Amino acid sequence: MVEQTPEAWMARALVLARRGLYTTDPNPRVGCVLVKDAQPVGEGFHARAGEPHAEVHALRQAGEAARGATAYVTLEPCSHHGRTGPCARALVEAGVARVVVAMADPNPAVAGRGIALLREAGIEVEVGLLEEQARALNPGFIMRMDHGRPFVRLKMAMSLDGRTAMRSGESQWITGPQARREVQRLRARSSAVLTGVESVIFDNSRLTVRADQAELEGVELIAGRQPLRVVVDSRLRLPEAAACLTEPGRTLVATVAGHEAERRERLEAAGAELVVLPADAAGRVDLHALLRHLADVEQANEVLLETGATLAGAMLDAGLVDEMQLFVAPTLLGGEARPLFQLAGIETMAHQRGLEILDIRAVGRDWRITARPERRTLAAR
Amino acid sequence: MVEQTPEAWMARALVLARRGLYTTDPNPRVGCVLVKDAQPVGEGFHARAGEPHAEVHALRQAGEAARGATAYVTLEPCSHHGRTGPCARALVEAGVARVVVAMADPNPAVAGRGIALLREAGIEVEVGLLEEQARALNPGFIMRMDHGRPFVRLKMAMSLDGRTAMRSGESQWITGPQARREVQRLRARSSAVLTGVESVIFDNSRLTVRADQAELEGVELIAGRQPLRVVVDSRLRLPEAAACLTEPGRTLVATVAGHEAERRERLEAAGAELVVLPADAAGRVDLHALLRHLADVEQANEVLLETGATLAGAMLDAGLVDEMQLFVAPTLLGGEARPLFQLAGIETMAHQRGLEILDIRAVGRDWRITARPERRTLAAR
Repeated sequence: MVEQTPEAWMARALVLARRGLYTTDPNPRVGCVLVKDAQPVGEGFHARAGEPHAEVHALRQAGEAARGATAYVTLEPCSHHGRTGPCARALVEAGVARVVVAMADPNPAVAGRGIALLREAGIEVEVGLLEEQARALNPGFIMRMDHGRPFVRLKMAMSLDGRTAMRSGESQWITGPQARREVQRLRARSSAVLTGVESVIFDNSRLTVRADQAELEGVELIAGRQPLRVVVDSRLRLPEAAACLTEPGRTLVATVAGHEAERRERLEAAGAELVVLPADAAGRVDLHALLRHLADVEQANEVLLETGATLAGAMLDAGLVDEMQLFVAPTLLGGEARPLFQLAGIETMAHQRGLEILDIRAVGRDWRITARPERRTLAAR
Repeated sequence: MVEQTPEAWMARALVLARRGLYTTDPNPRVGCVLVKDAQPVGEGFHARAGEPHAEVHALRQAGEAARGATAYVTLEPCSHHGRTGPCARALVEAGVARVVVAMADPNPAVAGRGIALLREAGIEVEVGLLEEQARALNPGFIMRMDHGRPFVRLKMAMSLDGRTAMRSGESQWITGPQARREVQRLRARSSAVLTGVESVIFDNSRLTVRADQAELEGVELIAGRQPLRVVVDSRLRLPEAAACLTEPGRTLVATVAGHEAERRERLEAAGAELVVLPADAAGRVDLHALLRHLADVEQANEVLLETGATLAGAMLDAGLVDEMQLFVAPTLLGGEARPLFQLAGIETMAHQRGLEILDIRAVGRDWRITARPERRTLAAR
């Protein structure tokens, strides 16, 4: 048998936490394992908001065995009376002897108070085991708590020569079914899908998760939740007949002030929720304001940006893209086809935008490149 | 000790053959191992044209031990009196008992006659062991013998969004030093480097092998040979001050008929060799005729295509690109920067050009993608 190190127990808690990847929103994904005499006596994960936290599931399973056990938790146990009562208190009451926490909770309502509560009760607490892995589970929740905006993941399907569509806009399909399945999974884990009105006008995309295409276990859990659809539409050009307006879930149309009431009302009657945001210097929706709105009002953790070169370039230029997932098809579309990004102010090589490549792997006949903008570039803004 | 299978001996012969990768041109790379009583008694490779063939080196090393030995040769031994006398005859005279050949020689001057000569002398001959690997060593020689044109390898350095230069043409440097070293090695193994006059005008590239940058063993062997530089220049716009005209080695300017004698003479005085080729319908150098010329007159095996979107696209459109090596830098240059390929007649997704990805690997901070145009696409021409 493999030796059960603290790292192995925490790794198990991370695996459990990941089971909530598609369902905990807007809460973070959290897993917990209770260990006594080198044996697991209880485990659990948070499944969805309003339901018990990971620690509560694990304590229920352990029963009396929790007394004297060590709890491995991927996120600091909560200290506040939310919908389920404070988990730190529950761990104390169950007589847990020791708590190992992967990361402190960035939520200002917790922020160390859970750990303090445990220590005050005489429980030994260790913080930081597999912290990096734990942070990777909840990039959106952490970004929202730390910076008041969601984590933005840009997804694009491109040819090997960097083209996302024909000049006409035709793009179905550049990538193969496995890549499209991955995109469904990216949507399923996101709080919101963000796009520009041009993309909606051309593709008439539904922007929904089709649980069958995502090929995920627990499909019924996922199908019940659709990410918020967000269309950036400064000039209010969204067709009332757009397919996304009648799909299950909500469609937010982000625009600026000054549009006619009648136009707004007709869009609302067609199923859109309008939100009027500050305009930037060019009269377009201020993207920083949009993301603040999505974090503050919609509690959006992860936003999937699925759009064309203009909005994608503007988001990059604004320093608002945290991760890029580029699905590269083994095909050429030629120099007349549509580019990935329209970027401002690139005239010489000195202006190029550096990326950090995190991963390249095969996805069916396509390749998925995961990258992020270099921090240096962001810091220079 | 590892069991010495026939495959292992042939693999050793292939390793030897590869030592001639940068020097045998226009001859093929060939290696030979002589084995007797499960021990190697002689080995050799062809180093450069005019010098002994691989079999001769191996036989010299083996001396009397060659009698009764098995010869592993990566290419059918020659039967014709070239510069070194027929190797098949030498193997017979040395008393070799058995010959294992990876591939028959596509050269019409040999084409099975070497094997026939051996068999007539009572030697057992086996053909086809590790044939695929042997063919991969000499793609250019095989293409020239089978199809009367060189093997064309397209090299490009690009950003992740598929751009090879700024709008101004500036491109130094998109990729890092390791990628540039690989490009030097690609040049060093090529018979010719092919480019368009636009690229020469902008970059003023020398198009030479800098042996120190290639970081190869046997640097002195390589430095003595420069690939032929070939500039496609239908309108004869090459500046007489172009750096490539005064570098060691030859510069061929491929053009069409009708230019003034004085202009031609001045270019020749500056160091260019002009070759007048048939024009295509648009009055530009016919690319098929150019490649035939390079094979027939220049005995070019491998041609490295290093050029911009126009000539690269035209070569692809003509079905004349056999392999692509794309060096991808982790950077974005934006939608205004220069594209990889200008391709004709791509209006809908149905016209996309499929590629087969053969390899993706890290080269320093960049990535090298090796691909080839899908055969289906070529066949449809």
